[in-house]
Amino acid sequence: MLVLEYDGTGFLGFQRQKKGRTIQGELEKALFRILCEKVRVIPAGRTDSGVHARGQTVNIQTCSKIPLTNIQRALNACLPVDLAVREIHEAAPDFHARYGAKRKVYCYRILCGPVRSPLARFFAYHHREPLDISLMRKGASILSGKHDFRAFQARAGKKTRTVRTLYKVRVGEEGPFLSFRFEGDGFLYNMVRNMVGTLLWLGRRKISVEEFKAIVKGRDRRLAGPTAPPQGLTLEKVIYGKS
Amino acid sequence: MLVLEYDGTGFLGFQRQKKGRTIQGELEKALFRILCEKVRVIPAGRTDSGVHARGQTVNIQTCSKIPLTNIQRALNACLPVDLAVREIHEAAPDFHARYGAKRKVYCYRILCGPVRSPLARFFAYHHREPLDISLMRKGASILSGKHDFRAFQARAGKKTRTVRTLYKVRVGEEGPFLSFRFEGDGFLYNMVRNMVGTLLWLGRRKISVEEFKAIVKGRDRRLAGPTAPPQGLTLEKVIYGKS
Repeated sequence: MLVLEYDGTGFLGFQRQKKGRTIQGELEKALFRILCEKVRVIPAGRTDSGVHARGQTVNIQTCSKIPLTNIQRALNACLPVDLAVREIHEAAPDFHARYGAKRKVYCYRILCGPVRSPLARFFAYHHREPLDISLMRKGASILSGKHDFRAFQARAGKKTRTVRTLYKVRVGEEGPFLSFRFEGDGFLYNMVRNMVGTLLWLGRRKISVEEFKAIVKGRDRRLAGPTAPPQGLTLEKVIYGKS
Repeated sequence: MLVLEYDGTGFLGFQRQKKGRTIQGELEKALFRILCEKVRVIPAGRTDSGVHARGQTVNIQTCSKIPLTNIQRALNACLPVDLAVREIHEAAPDFHARYGAKRKVYCYRILCGPVRSPLARFFAYHHREPLDISLMRKGASILSGKHDFRAFQARAGKKTRTVRTLYKVRVGEEGPFLSFRFEGDGFLYNMVRNMVGTLLWLGRRKISVEEFKAIVKGRDRRLAGPTAPPQGLTLEKVIYGKS
Protein backbone atom coordinates (compact mmCIF):
# COMPACT_ATOMS: atom_id res chain seq x y z
CA MET A 1 0.00 0.00 0.00
CA LEU A 2 1.44 3.31 -1.12
CA VAL A 3 0.17 6.78 -0.28
CA LEU A 4 0.87 9.24 -3.09
CA GLU A 5 1.05 13.00 -3.33
CA TYR A 6 1.00 14.65 -6.74
CA ASP A 7 0.59 17.95 -8.48
CA GLY A 8 -1.87 17.02 -11.22
CA THR A 9 -1.05 20.03 -13.41
CA GLY A 10 1.43 18.25 -15.65
CA PHE A 11 -0.37 14.89 -15.88
CA LEU A 12 -3.08 13.67 -18.23
CA GLY A 13 -4.68 12.09 -15.19
CA PHE A 14 -4.10 8.96 -13.13
CA GLN A 15 -4.78 6.23 -15.66
CA ARG A 16 -2.02 5.03 -17.97
CA GLN A 17 -2.53 5.98 -21.59
CA LYS A 18 -0.78 5.05 -24.81
CA LYS A 19 0.61 8.57 -25.11
CA GLY A 20 1.27 11.24 -22.54
CA ARG A 21 2.33 11.52 -18.91
CA THR A 22 0.11 9.83 -16.34
CA ILE A 23 0.56 9.08 -12.66
CA GLN A 24 0.08 5.36 -13.19
CA GLY A 25 2.53 5.38 -16.10
CA GLU A 26 5.27 7.22 -14.20
CA LEU A 27 4.81 5.09 -11.08
CA GLU A 28 4.82 1.77 -12.95
CA LYS A 29 7.93 2.86 -14.86
CA ALA A 30 9.72 3.72 -11.60
CA LEU A 31 8.58 0.47 -9.97
CA PHE A 32 9.91 -1.51 -12.93
CA ARG A 33 13.30 0.17 -12.60
CA ILE A 34 13.51 -0.56 -8.88
CA LEU A 35 11.84 -3.98 -8.58
CA CYS A 36 12.87 -5.31 -12.00
CA GLU A 37 9.41 -6.74 -12.48
CA LYS A 38 6.25 -5.52 -14.16
CA VAL A 39 4.01 -4.21 -11.41
CA ARG A 40 0.42 -3.07 -11.85
CA VAL A 41 -0.73 -0.11 -9.79
CA ILE A 42 -4.35 -0.11 -8.54
CA PRO A 43 -5.60 3.22 -7.16
CA ALA A 44 -8.38 3.99 -4.67
CA GLY A 45 -9.86 6.11 -7.42
CA ARG A 46 -8.72 7.60 -10.69
CA THR A 47 -8.21 11.33 -10.80
CA ASP A 48 -8.57 13.44 -13.94
CA SER A 49 -6.02 15.65 -15.64
CA GLY A 50 -5.21 18.67 -13.47
CA VAL A 51 -6.65 17.12 -10.29
CA HIS A 52 -4.20 16.87 -7.37
CA ALA A 53 -3.73 14.40 -4.54
CA ARG A 54 -2.26 14.74 -1.11
CA GLY A 55 -3.31 11.22 -0.14
CA GLN A 56 -4.13 9.00 -3.11
CA THR A 57 -3.69 5.37 -2.12
CA VAL A 58 -2.65 2.55 -4.41
CA ASN A 59 -1.81 -1.10 -3.98
CA ILE A 60 0.81 -3.15 -5.77
CA GLN A 61 1.93 -6.75 -5.58
CA THR A 62 5.57 -7.74 -5.69
CA CYS A 63 7.81 -10.66 -4.78
CA SER A 64 10.68 -8.29 -4.07
CA LYS A 65 12.63 -8.70 -0.83
CA ILE A 66 13.82 -5.09 -0.77
CA PRO A 67 12.80 -3.44 2.55
CA LEU A 68 9.86 -1.05 2.25
CA THR A 69 11.74 2.05 3.34
CA ASN A 70 14.37 1.38 0.67
CA ILE A 71 11.68 0.98 -1.98
CA GLN A 72 10.13 4.28 -0.88
CA ARG A 73 13.45 6.11 -0.90
CA ALA A 74 14.36 4.71 -4.32
CA LEU A 75 10.95 5.61 -5.74
CA ASN A 76 11.15 9.18 -4.47
CA ALA A 77 14.61 9.48 -5.97
CA CYS A 78 13.54 8.34 -9.40
CA LEU A 79 9.96 9.62 -9.65
CA PRO A 80 9.47 13.03 -11.30
CA VAL A 81 9.29 16.11 -9.01
CA ASP A 82 5.50 16.35 -9.29
CA LEU A 83 4.90 12.86 -7.87
CA ALA A 84 6.03 11.36 -4.56
CA VAL A 85 5.35 8.39 -2.29
CA ARG A 86 4.45 9.77 1.13
CA GLU A 87 4.00 6.43 2.86
CA ILE A 88 4.50 2.76 2.12
CA HIS A 89 3.08 -0.11 4.17
CA GLU A 90 2.84 -3.87 4.04
CA ALA A 91 -0.81 -4.79 3.40
CA ALA A 92 -2.86 -7.97 3.69
CA PRO A 93 -2.61 -10.18 0.57
CA ASP A 94 -6.25 -9.44 -0.28
CA PHE A 95 -5.93 -5.66 0.21
CA HIS A 96 -7.43 -3.72 -2.68
CA ALA A 97 -7.04 0.08 -2.74
CA ARG A 98 -10.41 0.64 -4.39
CA TYR A 99 -12.66 -2.06 -2.91
CA GLY A 100 -11.12 -1.67 0.55
CA ALA A 101 -11.62 2.09 0.76
CA LYS A 102 -14.19 2.98 3.44
CA ARG A 103 -14.15 6.74 2.94
CA LYS A 104 -12.53 9.31 0.71
CA VAL A 105 -11.97 12.97 1.41
CA TYR A 106 -11.91 15.48 -1.46
CA CYS A 107 -11.36 19.20 -1.13
CA TYR A 108 -12.36 21.78 -3.75
CA ARG A 109 -10.82 25.26 -3.48
CA ILE A 110 -12.19 28.45 -5.00
CA LEU A 111 -10.57 31.87 -5.11
CA CYS A 112 -13.38 34.40 -5.12
CA GLY A 113 -12.45 37.92 -6.19
CA PRO A 114 -11.89 40.18 -9.17
CA VAL A 115 -8.14 39.55 -9.43
CA ARG A 116 -6.61 36.19 -10.37
CA SER A 117 -3.87 34.79 -8.13
CA PRO A 118 -0.57 33.79 -9.76
CA LEU A 119 0.46 31.83 -6.65
CA ALA A 120 -2.80 29.84 -6.48
CA ARG A 121 -3.44 29.45 -10.20
CA PHE A 122 -2.86 25.70 -10.25
CA PHE A 123 -4.52 25.00 -6.90
CA ALA A 124 -7.78 26.94 -6.86
CA TYR A 125 -10.50 27.78 -9.34
CA HIS A 126 -10.76 31.53 -9.82
CA HIS A 127 -14.31 32.88 -9.68
CA ARG A 128 -14.44 36.62 -10.42
CA GLU A 129 -17.95 37.50 -9.27
CA PRO A 130 -18.96 37.58 -5.60
CA LEU A 131 -20.55 34.44 -4.17
CA ASP A 132 -23.30 34.16 -1.59
CA ILE A 133 -21.53 31.87 0.82
CA SER A 134 -24.47 31.39 3.17
CA LEU A 135 -26.52 30.03 0.26
CA MET A 136 -23.67 27.72 -0.68
CA ARG A 137 -23.53 26.49 2.93
CA LYS A 138 -27.22 25.65 2.70
CA GLY A 139 -26.57 23.73 -0.52
CA ALA A 140 -23.70 21.88 1.09
CA SER A 141 -25.90 20.78 3.99
CA ILE A 142 -28.52 19.50 1.51
CA LEU A 143 -25.83 17.32 -0.11
CA SER A 144 -24.79 15.92 3.24
CA GLY A 145 -26.23 12.48 4.04
CA LYS A 146 -27.31 9.44 2.04
CA HIS A 147 -28.72 10.27 -1.39
CA ASP A 148 -28.95 9.06 -4.94
CA PHE A 149 -26.29 11.31 -6.53
CA ARG A 150 -27.16 10.41 -10.13
CA ALA A 151 -27.68 14.12 -10.93
CA PHE A 152 -23.95 14.63 -10.41
CA GLN A 153 -22.60 11.63 -12.29
CA ALA A 154 -20.74 12.52 -15.48
CA ARG A 155 -22.59 11.63 -18.65
CA ALA A 156 -19.72 9.21 -19.33
CA GLY A 157 -20.21 7.64 -15.88
CA LYS A 158 -21.54 4.12 -16.12
CA LYS A 159 -22.48 3.33 -12.52
CA THR A 160 -26.06 2.14 -12.15
CA ARG A 161 -25.92 2.08 -8.35
CA THR A 162 -25.63 5.76 -7.64
CA VAL A 163 -26.56 6.00 -3.96
CA ARG A 164 -23.70 7.36 -1.86
CA THR A 165 -23.31 8.79 1.62
CA LEU A 166 -21.58 12.08 2.32
CA TYR A 167 -20.70 11.92 6.01
CA LYS A 168 -19.41 15.46 6.16
CA VAL A 169 -19.50 18.46 3.86
CA ARG A 170 -17.49 21.29 5.38
CA VAL A 171 -17.37 24.79 3.94
CA GLY A 172 -14.28 26.76 4.94
CA GLU A 173 -13.23 30.36 4.35
CA GLU A 174 -9.69 31.65 4.48
CA GLY A 175 -9.41 35.21 3.23
CA PRO A 176 -10.64 35.19 -0.39
CA PHE A 177 -10.35 31.39 -0.55
CA LEU A 178 -13.35 29.16 -0.14
CA SER A 179 -13.01 25.43 0.37
CA PHE A 180 -15.50 22.59 0.17
CA ARG A 181 -14.43 19.42 1.90
CA PHE A 182 -16.43 16.29 1.10
CA GLU A 183 -16.04 13.10 3.10
CA GLY A 184 -18.00 10.21 1.66
CA ASP A 185 -18.16 6.45 1.26
CA GLY A 186 -17.65 6.80 -2.48
CA PHE A 187 -17.88 9.25 -5.34
CA LEU A 188 -19.28 8.85 -8.84
CA TYR A 189 -17.26 9.96 -11.84
CA ASN A 190 -16.93 13.78 -11.72
CA MET A 191 -19.33 13.91 -8.78
CA VAL A 192 -17.39 16.46 -6.71
CA ARG A 193 -16.77 18.81 -9.62
CA ASN A 194 -20.43 18.57 -10.69
CA MET A 195 -21.65 19.25 -7.14
CA VAL A 196 -19.34 22.27 -6.95
CA GLY A 197 -20.52 23.51 -10.35
CA THR A 198 -24.09 23.38 -9.06
CA LEU A 199 -23.17 24.96 -5.71
CA LEU A 200 -21.65 27.81 -7.76
CA TRP A 201 -25.07 28.34 -9.39
CA LEU A 202 -26.44 28.76 -5.87
CA GLY A 203 -23.61 31.11 -4.89
CA ARG A 204 -24.30 33.28 -7.93
CA ARG A 205 -28.02 33.24 -7.05
CA LYS A 206 -28.77 31.73 -10.43
CA ILE A 207 -30.93 29.13 -8.67
CA SER A 208 -32.70 29.06 -5.30
CA VAL A 209 -32.15 26.61 -2.46
CA GLU A 210 -35.44 24.97 -3.45
CA GLU A 211 -34.25 24.57 -7.03
CA PHE A 212 -30.96 23.15 -5.76
CA LYS A 213 -32.91 20.61 -3.72
CA ALA A 214 -34.99 19.73 -6.80
CA ILE A 215 -31.82 19.20 -8.86
CA VAL A 216 -30.49 16.73 -6.30
CA LYS A 217 -33.83 14.91 -6.15
CA GLY A 218 -34.32 15.03 -9.95
CA ARG A 219 -31.41 12.63 -10.55
CA ASP A 220 -30.97 14.11 -14.03
CA ARG A 221 -27.46 15.24 -14.95
CA ARG A 222 -28.86 17.67 -17.53
CA LEU A 223 -30.52 19.75 -14.80
CA ALA A 224 -27.37 20.15 -12.67
CA GLY A 225 -24.60 22.72 -13.10
CA PRO A 226 -21.44 22.45 -15.21
CA THR A 227 -18.36 20.49 -14.16
CA ALA A 228 -16.10 22.81 -12.13
CA PRO A 229 -12.51 23.02 -13.46
CA PRO A 230 -10.02 20.36 -12.29
CA GLN A 231 -7.32 22.55 -10.72
CA GLY A 232 -9.48 23.32 -7.64
CA LEU A 233 -9.79 19.64 -6.72
CA THR A 234 -7.52 17.60 -4.44
CA LEU A 235 -7.99 14.03 -3.23
CA GLU A 236 -6.96 14.63 0.38
CA LYS A 237 -7.09 11.12 1.79
CA VAL A 238 -8.49 7.66 1.60
CA ILE A 239 -9.64 5.96 4.79
CA TYR A 240 -9.53 2.19 5.26
CA GLY A 241 -11.25 0.15 7.93
CA LYS A 242 -9.36 -1.72 10.62
CA SER A 243 -8.42 -5.15 9.40
CA MET B 1 1.20 52.64 -6.85
CA LEU B 2 0.68 49.01 -7.86
CA VAL B 3 0.63 45.98 -5.58
CA LEU B 4 1.88 42.87 -7.38
CA GLU B 5 1.56 39.16 -6.79
CA TYR B 6 3.85 36.79 -8.63
CA ASP B 7 5.04 33.23 -8.74
CA GLY B 8 8.80 33.74 -9.02
CA THR B 9 9.49 30.24 -10.36
CA GLY B 10 9.51 31.20 -14.03
CA PHE B 11 11.27 34.56 -13.68
CA LEU B 12 14.95 35.46 -13.63
CA GLY B 13 14.07 37.86 -10.82
CA PHE B 14 12.50 41.30 -10.60
CA GLN B 15 15.03 43.42 -12.44
CA ARG B 16 14.85 43.78 -16.21
CA GLN B 17 17.69 42.07 -18.05
CA LYS B 18 18.83 42.06 -21.64
CA LYS B 19 17.74 38.45 -22.02
CA GLY B 20 15.19 36.39 -20.14
CA ARG B 21 11.87 36.86 -18.40
CA THR B 22 11.76 39.31 -15.51
CA ILE B 23 8.90 40.84 -13.56
CA GLN B 24 9.98 44.37 -14.45
CA GLY B 25 10.33 43.44 -18.10
CA GLU B 26 6.87 41.83 -18.36
CA LEU B 27 5.20 44.64 -16.44
CA GLU B 28 6.84 47.42 -18.48
CA LYS B 29 5.92 45.61 -21.70
CA ALA B 30 2.28 45.35 -20.61
CA LEU B 31 2.23 49.00 -19.47
CA PHE B 32 3.59 50.09 -22.83
CA ARG B 33 0.82 48.19 -24.62
CA ILE B 34 -1.88 49.75 -22.48
CA LEU B 35 -0.61 53.28 -21.89
CA CYS B 36 1.24 53.69 -25.20
CA GLU B 37 4.14 55.31 -23.42
CA LYS B 38 7.42 54.05 -22.00
CA VAL B 39 6.91 53.65 -18.26
CA ARG B 40 9.62 52.81 -15.76
CA VAL B 41 8.68 50.52 -12.87
CA ILE B 42 10.32 51.18 -9.48
CA PRO B 43 9.87 48.39 -6.89
CA ALA B 44 9.97 48.51 -3.10
CA GLY B 45 12.76 45.96 -3.36
CA ARG B 46 14.11 43.66 -6.02
CA THR B 47 13.49 39.98 -5.59
CA ASP B 48 15.77 37.23 -6.92
CA SER B 49 14.96 34.46 -9.35
CA GLY B 50 12.57 31.96 -7.78
CA VAL B 51 11.47 34.32 -4.99
CA HIS B 52 7.72 35.00 -4.84
CA ALA B 53 5.62 38.00 -3.88
CA ARG B 54 2.12 38.31 -2.56
CA GLY B 55 2.51 42.06 -1.98
CA GLN B 56 5.41 43.58 -3.90
CA THR B 57 4.77 47.30 -4.39
CA VAL B 58 5.94 49.40 -7.32
CA ASN B 59 5.40 52.95 -8.48
CA ILE B 60 5.05 54.24 -12.01
CA GLN B 61 4.47 57.67 -13.51
CA THR B 62 2.12 58.23 -16.40
CA CYS B 63 0.17 61.07 -18.08
CA SER B 64 -2.57 58.63 -19.08
CA LYS B 65 -6.17 59.61 -18.37
CA ILE B 66 -7.41 56.00 -18.35
CA PRO B 67 -9.21 55.27 -15.05
CA LEU B 68 -7.18 53.19 -12.61
CA THR B 69 -9.57 50.25 -12.49
CA ASN B 70 -9.45 50.01 -16.28
CA ILE B 71 -5.64 50.04 -16.23
CA GLN B 72 -5.67 47.27 -13.63
CA ARG B 73 -8.15 45.15 -15.58
CA ALA B 74 -6.24 45.63 -18.82
CA LEU B 75 -2.92 44.76 -17.13
CA ASN B 76 -4.32 41.57 -15.60
CA ALA B 77 -5.71 40.60 -19.00
CA CYS B 78 -2.40 41.01 -20.79
CA LEU B 79 0.16 40.08 -18.11
CA PRO B 80 1.33 36.44 -18.05
CA VAL B 81 -0.47 34.03 -15.71
CA ASP B 82 2.36 34.10 -13.14
CA LEU B 83 2.12 37.86 -12.58
CA ALA B 84 -0.89 39.97 -11.52
CA VAL B 85 -1.72 43.44 -10.23
CA ARG B 86 -3.66 42.98 -6.98
CA GLU B 87 -4.24 46.67 -6.29
CA ILE B 88 -3.71 49.99 -8.00
CA HIS B 89 -3.88 53.39 -6.28
CA GLU B 90 -3.27 57.03 -7.09
CA ALA B 91 -0.17 58.12 -5.15
CA ALA B 92 1.37 61.48 -4.22
CA PRO B 93 3.63 62.85 -6.99
CA ASP B 94 6.70 62.31 -4.82
CA PHE B 95 5.76 58.74 -3.83
CA HIS B 96 8.66 56.33 -4.23
CA ALA B 97 8.04 52.61 -3.65
CA ARG B 98 11.53 52.02 -2.24
CA TYR B 99 12.30 55.20 -0.28
CA GLY B 100 8.75 55.48 1.01
CA ALA B 101 8.59 51.92 2.39
CA LYS B 102 8.39 51.93 6.18
CA ARG B 103 8.35 48.18 6.72
CA LYS B 104 8.55 45.02 4.68
CA VAL B 105 7.29 41.59 5.59
CA TYR B 106 9.02 38.49 4.23
CA CYS B 107 8.05 34.90 4.91
CA TYR B 108 10.35 31.90 4.49
CA ARG B 109 8.73 28.44 4.39
CA ILE B 110 10.45 25.14 5.10
CA LEU B 111 9.07 21.64 4.68
CA CYS B 112 10.78 19.46 7.26
CA GLY B 113 10.52 15.73 6.72
CA PRO B 114 12.02 12.79 4.88
CA VAL B 115 9.67 12.97 1.87
CA ARG B 116 9.60 15.84 -0.63
CA SER B 117 6.24 17.45 -1.39
CA PRO B 118 5.17 17.70 -5.07
CA LEU B 119 2.46 20.23 -4.18
CA ALA B 120 4.80 22.52 -2.23
CA ARG B 121 7.93 22.09 -4.33
CA PHE B 122 7.95 25.65 -5.65
CA PHE B 123 6.80 27.28 -2.40
CA ALA B 124 8.84 25.73 0.38
CA TYR B 125 12.42 24.61 0.88
CA HIS B 126 12.57 20.91 1.61
CA HIS B 127 14.81 19.97 4.54
CA ARG B 128 15.07 16.21 5.03
CA GLU B 129 16.62 15.97 8.47
CA PRO B 130 14.70 16.85 11.65
CA LEU B 131 15.11 20.38 12.98
CA ASP B 132 15.22 21.53 16.59
CA ILE B 133 12.50 24.13 16.40
CA SER B 134 12.94 25.41 19.94
CA LEU B 135 16.58 26.25 19.14
CA MET B 136 15.47 28.00 15.96
CA ARG B 137 12.95 30.01 17.96
CA LYS B 138 15.76 31.14 20.24
CA GLY B 139 17.80 32.18 17.22
CA ALA B 140 14.82 34.07 15.80
CA SER B 141 14.41 36.01 19.04
CA ILE B 142 18.11 36.93 18.93
CA LEU B 143 17.60 38.39 15.44
CA SER B 144 14.64 40.42 16.60
CA GLY B 145 15.42 44.08 17.36
CA LYS B 146 17.90 46.67 16.09
CA HIS B 147 21.23 45.20 15.00
CA ASP B 148 24.04 45.57 12.53
CA PHE B 149 23.09 42.77 10.10
CA ARG B 150 26.33 42.88 8.14
CA ALA B 151 26.89 39.17 8.82
CA PHE B 152 23.88 38.43 6.64
CA GLN B 153 24.56 40.75 3.74
CA ALA B 154 25.41 38.96 0.50
CA ARG B 155 29.05 39.27 -0.51
CA ALA B 156 27.77 41.16 -3.56
CA GLY B 157 25.84 43.55 -1.28
CA LYS B 158 27.29 47.03 -1.31
CA LYS B 159 25.49 48.72 1.56
CA THR B 160 27.85 50.30 4.08
CA ARG B 161 25.07 51.23 6.49
CA THR B 162 23.97 47.81 7.62
CA VAL B 163 21.98 48.53 10.77
CA ARG B 164 18.36 47.44 10.46
CA THR B 165 15.47 46.81 12.83
CA LEU B 166 13.45 43.61 12.82
CA TYR B 167 10.23 44.53 14.61
CA LYS B 168 8.88 41.00 14.61
CA VAL B 169 10.27 37.58 13.86
CA ARG B 170 7.50 35.00 14.09
CA VAL B 171 8.09 31.27 13.88
CA GLY B 172 5.04 29.30 12.80
CA GLU B 173 4.35 25.58 12.53
CA GLU B 174 1.67 24.00 10.38
CA GLY B 175 2.00 20.24 10.17
CA PRO B 176 5.44 19.53 8.66
CA PHE B 177 5.72 23.14 7.44
CA LEU B 178 7.76 25.69 9.32
CA SER B 179 7.51 29.39 8.55
CA PHE B 180 9.68 32.34 9.52
CA ARG B 181 8.01 35.71 9.17
CA PHE B 182 10.29 38.73 9.33
CA GLU B 183 8.91 42.25 9.63
CA GLY B 184 11.61 44.91 9.40
CA ASP B 185 12.35 48.48 8.37
CA GLY B 186 14.62 47.21 5.62
CA PHE B 187 16.56 44.20 4.45
CA LEU B 188 20.06 43.91 3.04
CA TYR B 189 20.67 41.95 -0.15
CA ASN B 190 19.98 38.25 0.57
CA MET B 191 19.56 39.03 4.27
CA VAL B 192 16.48 36.85 4.87
CA ARG B 193 17.88 33.84 3.04
CA ASN B 194 21.21 34.18 4.87
CA MET B 195 19.49 34.46 8.25
CA VAL B 196 17.43 31.37 7.44
CA GLY B 197 20.56 29.50 6.31
CA THR B 198 22.14 30.28 9.67
CA LEU B 199 18.96 29.43 11.61
CA LEU B 200 19.08 26.05 9.83
CA TRP B 201 22.56 25.50 11.30
CA LEU B 202 20.99 26.04 14.70
CA GLY B 203 18.08 23.73 13.90
CA ARG B 204 20.50 21.00 12.85
CA ARG B 205 22.48 21.60 16.07
CA LYS B 206 25.55 22.34 14.01
CA ILE B 207 26.05 25.48 16.11
CA SER B 208 24.90 26.51 19.60
CA VAL B 209 22.75 29.49 20.52
CA GLU B 210 25.92 31.18 21.83
CA GLU B 211 27.67 30.61 18.51
CA PHE B 212 24.62 31.95 16.69
CA LYS B 213 24.79 35.09 18.83
CA ALA B 214 28.50 35.42 18.06
CA ILE B 215 27.82 35.14 14.32
CA VAL B 216 25.30 38.00 14.49
CA LYS B 217 27.72 40.12 16.54
CA GLY B 218 30.74 39.16 14.42
CA ARG B 219 29.37 41.03 11.39
CA ASP B 220 31.38 38.76 9.12
CA ARG B 221 29.48 37.11 6.26
CA ARG B 222 32.04 34.29 6.10
CA LEU B 223 31.06 33.08 9.58
CA ALA B 224 27.32 32.87 8.84
CA GLY B 225 25.42 30.02 7.19
CA PRO B 226 24.74 29.48 3.49
CA THR B 227 22.05 31.31 1.55
CA ALA B 228 18.81 29.33 1.82
CA PRO B 229 17.23 28.46 -1.58
CA PRO B 230 14.92 31.06 -3.18
CA GLN B 231 11.70 29.05 -3.54
CA GLY B 232 10.98 29.24 0.22
CA LEU B 233 10.89 33.03 0.20
CA THR B 234 7.88 35.31 -0.37
CA LEU B 235 7.70 39.09 -0.08
CA GLU B 236 4.36 39.24 1.74
CA LYS B 237 3.79 42.97 1.94
CA VAL B 238 5.27 46.43 2.02
CA ILE B 239 3.97 48.92 4.56
CA TYR B 240 3.95 52.67 3.91
CA GLY B 241 3.44 55.44 6.45
CA LYS B 242 0.36 57.60 6.51
CA SER B 243 0.79 60.49 4.12
